[in-house]
Amino acid sequence: MNGKQLRLGIDLGGTSAKVGVVDEHAKVLHAVSVPTSEDFDKAADDMAIAARQAARLAGMEITDFPFAGAGVPSMINPATGRMVFANNTGWHDAPMREALEKRLGIPVKLANDADCALLAEAKAGAAQGFAHALMLTLGTGVGSAMIINGHLFPGGDGMGMEAGHLPLVAGGYPCTCGASGCLEAYVSATGLAAIAREMLAEHPHSALNASNMKLTGRTIFGAAEQGDRAATLIIDRYCEYLAQGIGGLITVFRPQVLVIGGGISHAGPPLFDRLNARVPKYIFAYEQIGGPDMRPAALGNDAGIVGAAFLDQA
Amino acid sequence: MNGKQLRLGIDLGGTSAKVGVVDEHAKVLHAVSVPTSEDFDKAADDMAIAARQAARLAGMEITDFPFAGAGVPSMINPATGRMVFANNTGWHDAPMREALEKRLGIPVKLANDADCALLAEAKAGAAQGFAHALMLTLGTGVGSAMIINGHLFPGGDGMGMEAGHLPLVAGGYPCTCGASGCLEAYVSATGLAAIAREMLAEHPHSALNASNMKLTGRTIFGAAEQGDRAATLIIDRYCEYLAQGIGGLITVFRPQVLVIGGGISHAGPPLFDRLNARVPKYIFAYEQIGGPDMRPAALGNDAGIVGAAFLDQA
Repeated sequence: MNGKQLRLGIDLGGTSAKVGVVDEHAKVLHAVSVPTSEDFDKAADDMAIAARQAARLAGMEITDFPFAGAGVPSMINPATGRMVFANNTGWHDAPMREALEKRLGIPVKLANDADCALLAEAKAGAAQGFAHALMLTLGTGVGSAMIINGHLFPGGDGMGMEAGHLPLVAGGYPCTCGASGCLEAYVSATGLAAIAREMLAEHPHSALNASNMKLTGRTIFGAAEQGDRAATLIIDRYCEYLAQGIGGLITVFRPQVLVIGGGISHAGPPLFDRLNARVPKYIFAYEQIGGPDMRPAALGNDAGIVGAAFLDQA
Repeated sequence: MNGKQLRLGIDLGGTSAKVGVVDEHAKVLHAVSVPTSEDFDKAADDMAIAARQAARLAGMEITDFPFAGAGVPSMINPATGRMVFANNTGWHDAPMREALEKRLGIPVKLANDADCALLAEAKAGAAQGFAHALMLTLGTGVGSAMIINGHLFPGGDGMGMEAGHLPLVAGGYPCTCGASGCLEAYVSATGLAAIAREMLAEHPHSALNASNMKLTGRTIFGAAEQGDRAATLIIDRYCEYLAQGIGGLITVFRPQVLVIGGGISHAGPPLFDRLNARVPKYIFAYEQIGGPDMRPAALGNDAGIVGAAFLDQA
């Protein structure tokens, strides 16, 4: 197989960095994972070592690849290739593109991880075949990305599309960004837990009050499935917030498809049925112009690697 | 003067339709205004008559113009040239492009009035010289438009950018769109009046409680200037809401300049000083990446005509 047909994608997460060799059909052929160091230089070293190992598994050298793509959990300054601020590791203004190019010896394309996830879904997943697609990832935080006319939407200076920090409940729950009431503060997994904590005070008999219970998407949706009334009410309220946020984003961006990823998206029909019932009332002029299909992300954990590997098509 | 250098712009408002002949420097040379009929056919007839009169004032025929541009207070379906829904006149799915083309005999370019206002500001006003500009018009409702890379941002299917219907206070004030808590419900002139009514209940001695007092941007900012304590508190709260909405939009769109138009923008420094103090805390990563200049619209009432006349450059 000719090296030019293969691609190299790096997915830097808060706990691990994964590097994969990806074929032209967006299939990950070989992957190597390393823990994410909180030390920036060590992290870059480890990513480069993992990249070499992944290349070797494919019988290649790094320099056989025209470029490496890297998705990172941070806003990126596209002019400098620096990570503006990475919550997970505490890095500020970290020169990731330069660090990786120096270590790998090939050009590196750097992007936000949510952008990579949507690019992957557009290439081979839930957003395939759509010119206009919006994606939200509902995890510890809220990632967002938009493809419009087939290209990622980066905002004016390339640091935009942080839709998790649009307001949802002005003056509401505190957000990690320093403001309060952001979409992320309500519809992330962290936000779901905050809603649950607030509501459980009024439902002392809920199984979710057990002292060893962690409040996560899995436990809360699981308790609802077991008939826990408080859990059902928590999910209803969460989905009302999420629906209003999604309806607003659809009103502004008018995508053909809305893809939901991240841990919460694994809740499946109990989540999507509620959204299908609630989102339309929050889409402006819905009766006249309708709204997009909403669906879960299809690529799972590979999305970050795949999207990074196709950043030349962003 | 050669007709090819002149342009024809139509600005349909809720109370009047204005047609102007515009030169290449975005100056309105001749303008004609007619009242807006609530009857669609009559309105289209009147606009065509006004267009002929405006052309005649310039010594021209309608057919001397390569096209006419028209800005209308409605979401537009770009595929059909229909006005999806116009609040002011109650028109649904109104075939405005077809109606005007039939009457004028030249191609018509149709756009949302907020898009026209921003296009005009970009051509010859407050957004001139910027590749990325965001505009909000704070009037009876909230209009919004974005220019990115020099072009109007229409959303995926061309019916987007209705940012007035992003959530601001989920579950809050009812909005004309049927949802509640939209940005428009809080930061329009109507929203300012709603905030004032709510707060005045606790301030019985405010001059704004006078039985003949209309609660408008002009009266409320005027009362604050006269030292009315309640008016100052109302404006503070209003600006806090507006700042959070603006901060969120900047976070998503990352414009180089934010232009504020509409009646409220005439409040001047009492508005902009408060926004300059409050918006930064609502811009994600502001300390690292900063934010745009915020300024009032510069073109006033001519903006609609001028923007429409330049819709070939949208």
